[in-house]
Amino acid sequence: MINRLCIIGVGLIGGSLSRALREKGFCRHVIGCGRDERHLQRARQLGVINEYSTDPANAVQGADMIVVSVPLRAMQSVFEQIDPHVPVDAVLTDVGSAKACVETAARKTLSGSLDRFVPGHPIAGTENSGVEASFAELYQGHKVILTPLEENTRETIGRVKAMWEATGANVQQMTAAHHDEVLAETSHLPHVLAFALVDTLSHMGDSDEVFQYAAGGFRDFTRIASSDPVMWRDICMENRDAILKILDRYMSDLENLREVISKSDLEMLQKIFSRAKDARDKYTQKYSS
Amino acid sequence: MINRLCIIGVGLIGGSLSRALREKGFCRHVIGCGRDERHLQRARQLGVINEYSTDPANAVQGADMIVVSVPLRAMQSVFEQIDPHVPVDAVLTDVGSAKACVETAARKTLSGSLDRFVPGHPIAGTENSGVEASFAELYQGHKVILTPLEENTRETIGRVKAMWEATGANVQQMTAAHHDEVLAETSHLPHVLAFALVDTLSHMGDSDEVFQYAAGGFRDFTRIASSDPVMWRDICMENRDAILKILDRYMSDLENLREVISKSDLEMLQKIFSRAKDARDKYTQKYSS
Repeated sequence: MINRLCIIGVGLIGGSLSRALREKGFCRHVIGCGRDERHLQRARQLGVINEYSTDPANAVQGADMIVVSVPLRAMQSVFEQIDPHVPVDAVLTDVGSAKACVETAARKTLSGSLDRFVPGHPIAGTENSGVEASFAELYQGHKVILTPLEENTRETIGRVKAMWEATGANVQQMTAAHHDEVLAETSHLPHVLAFALVDTLSHMGDSDEVFQYAAGGFRDFTRIASSDPVMWRDICMENRDAILKILDRYMSDLENLREVISKSDLEMLQKIFSRAKDARDKYTQKYSS
Repeated sequence: MINRLCIIGVGLIGGSLSRALREKGFCRHVIGCGRDERHLQRARQLGVINEYSTDPANAVQGADMIVVSVPLRAMQSVFEQIDPHVPVDAVLTDVGSAKACVETAARKTLSGSLDRFVPGHPIAGTENSGVEASFAELYQGHKVILTPLEENTRETIGRVKAMWEATGANVQQMTAAHHDEVLAETSHLPHVLAFALVDTLSHMGDSDEVFQYAAGGFRDFTRIASSDPVMWRDICMENRDAILKILDRYMSDLENLREVISKSDLEMLQKIFSRAKDARDKYTQKYSS
């Protein structure tokens, strides 16, 4: 049970967390923090938060749980601002999509509260952003990955875990480096490919016609290209090495597939497509929620 | 109104066409044709067809509308088998995903009925295949592209158009070459990219774990990789030039994006992602059905 929850960055992710915890009665009071006061007013009107402040140092006062839910490249500045003001019994976490960079930023800036900072990442979201898009069920049945620091106590980790479990999420732990590799493969690379595809097509001479004939498969395939550009710019910057590693592997495989098509190698083409279909069908059966 | 419809290849596409036309009362009797008798029995049990034959020459007898709905590389052989038996008042069409190759095959083989063959392509489908996956609403609100031959009369084209309009589809016409370019861009390329991505990931050492952490965005992005491998092999072979052209352009754009990420060019990265998001959002507003 959380007495006073402070959410810094009240968008889709932070807003949905607040909605879920309030709906489950896991949280008595929520203070939202952000730079845009109108945005915070809107969050209060929507019933997502009880009160707000535009000053992180002020917002964290009295909180027993602090969730930093800002773009990756804004994390360090927020940590700097809150560090001297974090209550001694408060636990901190974040929701960043890459974890090694957040750990680095925390080690640089959180002097008094590093041992109580448990990095985290809910594997959930939609292509929409902003508090208007938030909803209480976002985390239901989804995974949340925690990448605890060696300084964290079991009790501290347990408090962050309990918060996410209250939203209906399934909480797992791994190292930050491993998290960053797995997410580069399953989330960051697909986003890069989808952004690139839509950008390529939008530069065709007949792009308006192209999009007109795009059917359901294309819509599904490119949905993630409607995601927030700043958030994804930050992810590409902050998880650059892992993304480049899997992107290079993909480009090499795609180059190979290009040769197979170019040479009209029927047998190999069918083999590659069948292998992919089998893998996806197997995965869908095994892990579909 | 169709008196006797002959569907050669009773799968998702042919089966859904039959269901739609029967439900609208646009068709009195449907004969299905295919190589697998058990499959045809199943289609009859499901009420998709009234009767069946495994012999195309026999199946077309007495038909006033013949729809060839087989994989692209099987078209020519079917045309050869039916050509001498097509009734003089029958109209023919197909549903192939590439059109220049179908026109070539038709010109080689349809001696007596070429002027009554109107190539067509319904822009609809799901990642599932087979008659079990067919449903009457598949074409509702979707586009069907016809690529008429110069030999076709207006009346002949009109009969194929009327059939598709009865399913709720929106029928448009263009040249085969233009169709093949547009579809390479909006459908064939995304399928190639999705098959390649799933194949790349399934070869990672930790592939089982990779798929376990894949979230909704990944599921959407890779849905089309569950499509029929033989059908997509044929499409890649038969629309090879148009696919290679757009694939090369995409790979070049992706190479450029890789450099932008590698150089940590924040400004350009945000510009590319924003451009893509704007294009997709605009397209979604304009053309979403």
